[in-house]
Amino acid sequence: MVKSAIKYYEVNPWKIIEKGFDPKRSKASESIFSLANEYMGVRGFFEETYSGETLIGTYFNGLYELPEKPSNAPYKGISRKSHFMVNSVNYLATEIYLNNQPVDLAKGSFTDFERTLDMQSGELVRRFIFRQKDCTAEITFKRLLDVENFTNAYQVIEIRMLEGKADLLVKSHLDYTVKHFGSLKPWKVIESTEKPDGFRVLAQTKKSRQSLLTDEEIIVSHGEISNPNDKKMVFTKQIAFKLEKSESFKLEKRVSHLVIHGGVDSSHKKTLEEIVAKRSCYEEALKSNRAYFEKKWAECDIEIAGDEENLQGIRFCIFNLFQTYRGISSNNIGAKGLTGEAYSGHAFWDTETYILPFYLFSNPADAKKLLMFRYRTLPNAIQRARELDCRGAGYPIATLNGDEACELWQHASLQFQPSTGVAFAIWHYVHLTDDFDFLIKYGAEMLLEIARFLASRGDWNPDKTGFGFYGVMGPDEFQMMVHNNTYTNYMAKRTFLYACEVLKRMEQSYPSEYAKLTEKTGFSKTELEDFLTKAQKMIILYDENTRLFEQHDGFFKLPHVDKNTISTDEFPLYSHWSYDRLYRNDLIKQPDVLMMMFLYNQSFTAEQKAANYDYYEPRTIHESSLSPSIHSILAMELGKTQEAFDFFRFATRLDLDDYNRNTFEGLHVTSLSAAWLNIVYGFGGLRSDGKYLKIAPKLPDVWERLKFRIRYRGRTIEVETTKTDTEIRISGESLELQIYDRLYMVDKSIKVKTGGPHDC
Amino acid sequence: MVKSAIKYYEVNPWKIIEKGFDPKRSKASESIFSLANEYMGVRGFFEETYSGETLIGTYFNGLYELPEKPSNAPYKGISRKSHFMVNSVNYLATEIYLNNQPVDLAKGSFTDFERTLDMQSGELVRRFIFRQKDCTAEITFKRLLDVENFTNAYQVIEIRMLEGKADLLVKSHLDYTVKHFGSLKPWKVIESTEKPDGFRVLAQTKKSRQSLLTDEEIIVSHGEISNPNDKKMVFTKQIAFKLEKSESFKLEKRVSHLVIHGGVDSSHKKTLEEIVAKRSCYEEALKSNRAYFEKKWAECDIEIAGDEENLQGIRFCIFNLFQTYRGISSNNIGAKGLTGEAYSGHAFWDTETYILPFYLFSNPADAKKLLMFRYRTLPNAIQRARELDCRGAGYPIATLNGDEACELWQHASLQFQPSTGVAFAIWHYVHLTDDFDFLIKYGAEMLLEIARFLASRGDWNPDKTGFGFYGVMGPDEFQMMVHNNTYTNYMAKRTFLYACEVLKRMEQSYPSEYAKLTEKTGFSKTELEDFLTKAQKMIILYDENTRLFEQHDGFFKLPHVDKNTISTDEFPLYSHWSYDRLYRNDLIKQPDVLMMMFLYNQSFTAEQKAANYDYYEPRTIHESSLSPSIHSILAMELGKTQEAFDFFRFATRLDLDDYNRNTFEGLHVTSLSAAWLNIVYGFGGLRSDGKYLKIAPKLPDVWERLKFRIRYRGRTIEVETTKTDTEIRISGESLELQIYDRLYMVDKSIKVKTGGPHDC
Repeated sequence: MVKSAIKYYEVNPWKIIEKGFDPKRSKASESIFSLANEYMGVRGFFEETYSGETLIGTYFNGLYELPEKPSNAPYKGISRKSHFMVNSVNYLATEIYLNNQPVDLAKGSFTDFERTLDMQSGELVRRFIFRQKDCTAEITFKRLLDVENFTNAYQVIEIRMLEGKADLLVKSHLDYTVKHFGSLKPWKVIESTEKPDGFRVLAQTKKSRQSLLTDEEIIVSHGEISNPNDKKMVFTKQIAFKLEKSESFKLEKRVSHLVIHGGVDSSHKKTLEEIVAKRSCYEEALKSNRAYFEKKWAECDIEIAGDEENLQGIRFCIFNLFQTYRGISSNNIGAKGLTGEAYSGHAFWDTETYILPFYLFSNPADAKKLLMFRYRTLPNAIQRARELDCRGAGYPIATLNGDEACELWQHASLQFQPSTGVAFAIWHYVHLTDDFDFLIKYGAEMLLEIARFLASRGDWNPDKTGFGFYGVMGPDEFQMMVHNNTYTNYMAKRTFLYACEVLKRMEQSYPSEYAKLTEKTGFSKTELEDFLTKAQKMIILYDENTRLFEQHDGFFKLPHVDKNTISTDEFPLYSHWSYDRLYRNDLIKQPDVLMMMFLYNQSFTAEQKAANYDYYEPRTIHESSLSPSIHSILAMELGKTQEAFDFFRFATRLDLDDYNRNTFEGLHVTSLSAAWLNIVYGFGGLRSDGKYLKIAPKLPDVWERLKFRIRYRGRTIEVETTKTDTEIRISGESLELQIYDRLYMVDKSIKVKTGGPHDC
Repeated sequence: MVKSAIKYYEVNPWKIIEKGFDPKRSKASESIFSLANEYMGVRGFFEETYSGETLIGTYFNGLYELPEKPSNAPYKGISRKSHFMVNSVNYLATEIYLNNQPVDLAKGSFTDFERTLDMQSGELVRRFIFRQKDCTAEITFKRLLDVENFTNAYQVIEIRMLEGKADLLVKSHLDYTVKHFGSLKPWKVIESTEKPDGFRVLAQTKKSRQSLLTDEEIIVSHGEISNPNDKKMVFTKQIAFKLEKSESFKLEKRVSHLVIHGGVDSSHKKTLEEIVAKRSCYEEALKSNRAYFEKKWAECDIEIAGDEENLQGIRFCIFNLFQTYRGISSNNIGAKGLTGEAYSGHAFWDTETYILPFYLFSNPADAKKLLMFRYRTLPNAIQRARELDCRGAGYPIATLNGDEACELWQHASLQFQPSTGVAFAIWHYVHLTDDFDFLIKYGAEMLLEIARFLASRGDWNPDKTGFGFYGVMGPDEFQMMVHNNTYTNYMAKRTFLYACEVLKRMEQSYPSEYAKLTEKTGFSKTELEDFLTKAQKMIILYDENTRLFEQHDGFFKLPHVDKNTISTDEFPLYSHWSYDRLYRNDLIKQPDVLMMMFLYNQSFTAEQKAANYDYYEPRTIHESSLSPSIHSILAMELGKTQEAFDFFRFATRLDLDDYNRNTFEGLHVTSLSAAWLNIVYGFGGLRSDGKYLKIAPKLPDVWERLKFRIRYRGRTIEVETTKTDTEIRISGESLELQIYDRLYMVDKSIKVKTGGPHDC
């Protein structure tokens, strides 16, 4: 892995601080300084006019647009349902003129630039001193998104005249001319109302006809608010005022947004009124945000002693996970969250496999809501399976609204990890929560439909002795259209078995719910037998002698490429190698067999894990940002502490230090969660797939102490580890826990030698 | 194969006759009645206004346009050089009004419709009686393309008043408003000159900026030619005249077209003048055409006694092969020739493998020119190889101008049969002609660059004991991205060996040419060793016991689908099955292992052919129109005469009887040649890959007699076979020939028992 850090921000335990401004880092910083409250997100772009590089981006969760033209897919089963999270109104847009000179950091002269994101409040503050010939002013911008009343957003602009005086002109806009993908103008304004202190605007996306109802209120310290004649798609209030030396001008803007998916009627305007009524002011919202985050951090902070950078890094990750998702909506989590246009706001199988554990161990109710997204979109998945000539439900590889948004058939038609991932997540969630109500009401139906899909998509080998999946792409996306990919087959086998277990249990213990389900789905005993047979006969390519699982049939016969012979300027291979060349050697993009061993960790022996790690890791180039953390976790388990720490090296700071040089597109939200996994599963040694929760911490050399908290069955478990001792504290009832290799009934707390197995 | 005939045209040995008009057959008939002279082609659309279903199409060989927007290919190596043979000026466009009523067969009343294509002259005549309330007229349209002076085209329109009288108005156009792909308007007019009897127009394609210079001359029997005010893109002359009962009106239009690829200058206008000077009249051109076709038919007619339909069918095939290509241009042969927009005028590997033999055995000079197209476009193939991260020359899967026009990476990046096909064709041509001049000047360089490409695209297996091709698609396009496809590996092996043989021979016998070549290409002995090693170590998946070649590594382990269980309405599978579903079972689209056994027929034993035919044919669904003929030829060789005739059943009449229901798009030009192969290689038993030419005719039950002629080494060989006797007559010097299983020195003629081996 040839990745290097760009050290740009100050290291600080609770803040991200940019001192001085490098225009080359402008777009990456916009991503880093993104604010979100799940309902909406706004990149950290400059409020005022900026003629340099920028990606103005404001997004609303679940608000999407359709392409101008549907794709011209030449073959059946290729998705024509693309859609993307759409760039929306720039409600922060401002123009500031001092003596008719615009404030523009790309053109003017300035000093003392400082931008700070406070992870204990979600407040973003930017301040600089702008110097003109005739005056010098300190300008401060503050913004935040209300976490409690999440439809509301606040902005404060302060201009203090340090030297000279100026005719100040401030224009504050609601700007609907934002462009998506650099040129597409997705919005039209349906209705607007002018008020003395702002506007109320109803806008609609052109193709998907989704609506956004926005109300603003502007309060100024001095001057009169007036309405200039302005463009049709930009709603402007302006204030002109003479600012004398030492005087300050302050503008506060309070904005409420309501997303409306269907037709707009009077009820929506009423809802908006209610929202506006709850709108407070910047300082109140800030106070409320602080209280919210204080509680959140108390639940799931991670403390690392001896490694300030990773401490800041992991907090940045956790902070952004909460910014992106905390269970207030019925949406999924996009690969870039609400921080950019890349990946179009689509959620991938990452949600169930990489992100869900964070929520399972911080707030299981939030985790359940993520699963409910899959239940809500089960009809879409059933429709998608039909398009693929299959039965049951095939979950999309990329989606925002439940439809398959990926137009690349080689992914959308060949990758089934979204479906097996949902099944795994249902199992994982129920395993940890015993939420049988969910399982019976929603989980069972999803499991059944996924099993149906898999049973119809798989095939028997020619002599009918083995069942497997042909023409698939496993998690390793450098192997396309392979047969009997071990990950796919194994996950399908476990899906079949779990579906059968749940359905049998339902029949016995919940007969009326079972009857309802069979009636709704036409499920029969024959089908259950079919699932069981296919599970039993599932082809798993395993060699008892070497203990190797073959990634797919024929993988061991592929031409070998020594990854160390690839020159650094050839990475990422996706951009530098001919497309077909990616697919015809034994290079691996991201863990495949090893991913299976991460998910069903305790179903495999230490020897199996060691053999497969030693075989596959050297072939893996980690071109997915999700790859290193999984390797780090397994390396820790295998006692390769230094290797584990090397893989971890850029987990928490992937975006802060822009290792992949693409932070400008948005944050790698799923990787943020992988960093959490890396610490809690890797160094904390958490394992959640066995009968008992297992905790087995071990520290990398440079760390003095690691402390993390997880929520589990109504308790908070706090784990604190030093090189010598590990203490586990439990709130609430006593709990049976596996610590290292032994079972303990833990009552309040226990202290063991770090590394186990001896008590102390 | 669930294909059925639509019997629509009269059976006739030399003509295609449509009696009566079925509007539902309109577009298919336009394809059937296409005229072409290689330089240009025009579909058999109605000259006069026709408001029914029609595809107006006029094409010039090598004249192409580019897409409005370049493709947005997301990955490296995916071609962005798409281009298409463009629909051009409709120079036949006519409007006819009788007493202000337009003649339009979709609206008016008519009888006695007859349309006839004469395969002995290339003349197309259409006649009908148009009945209005106030008059009845017989209207005749004739057209032909001059075969000798191929830039010239002629049209005659005759209107005879049978009853009543009429104010006749005829408008004759040069219409540049033609649309491509139903909506794209590719042309703009650069310059136009009005003359008393017509126009001279210079038009240009919008994107590719290729030009067409057209001059017309209109001669009428009565009336004055005048110029109505008309549209900018339509150039019109009109004649108004009162036509009394029994009177006839005649219009003759003579048109010359000059295609100009680069910038237009005065030299082109001079060339046009010369062309116009050579322009004669309809009757003279018709006479000249008759003489041309008389000579052609004498060289390569096929006669079948006892099967009128196939007699007409094969003549239709041969006629259209000559219409499409006869060596006057430096272009290749598009899959639909000059008869429609489908396949965009692109040539595929079909040219070298299916079409070339027809020209090799009718006029080797024409065959050579087809190979020269590949030499002319060698730089494009070298560039294409670079795009694929390879060395040498990778020939495109689809092209008109030499660039890869196929935007589907799964074909363009994975199929190497174009490259190995060119190498095979060079070998085949030189093998039959001993044209060492060509081999040394052009062939060797192509062979070297193709071998380089293959050497760089292939890979060693992990233990370096075998070399092969990974991630390819063989001729069977239902198996994508497979490893060690036997066809690909075997063809590459033969390419390496032949390239080495040629290069060694050149070094010894043509040292100065060899020196030039090594200087030009940087070729070295090391490279030759590399080719030889890779040939020797080529992985060929062959089982000595079963004599089976495995189509690719793992083919025998694919799930089996019994093709007889697929319902007829699922065909073609491309349109009815989810795209991925095509690729994950043992169904075969078209011959793959068997194609290798057709091309290098005599390198395999009868037992090998039998074993592989019996294994692969039952898995083949013949979704390519090229598939049945190859199976028919091999079935004949294996003594499966009835099966062979069943496969042959729709070879000659694929388009005449519209078996695939897509003749409306254009003729299956490569299948026309497959029909010729089917008769000459299948029933005639010709084999051209051994040391001696082999002839081993055998007749299907229903045929009484088969006679065919081929050209070979300056001689004409005429083969005449009945159920009992086979006579072979040779013009010119005596020749050693293999007839059935014996060698004969044939002087003038020889007669043997049909089926051999006994002389009579």
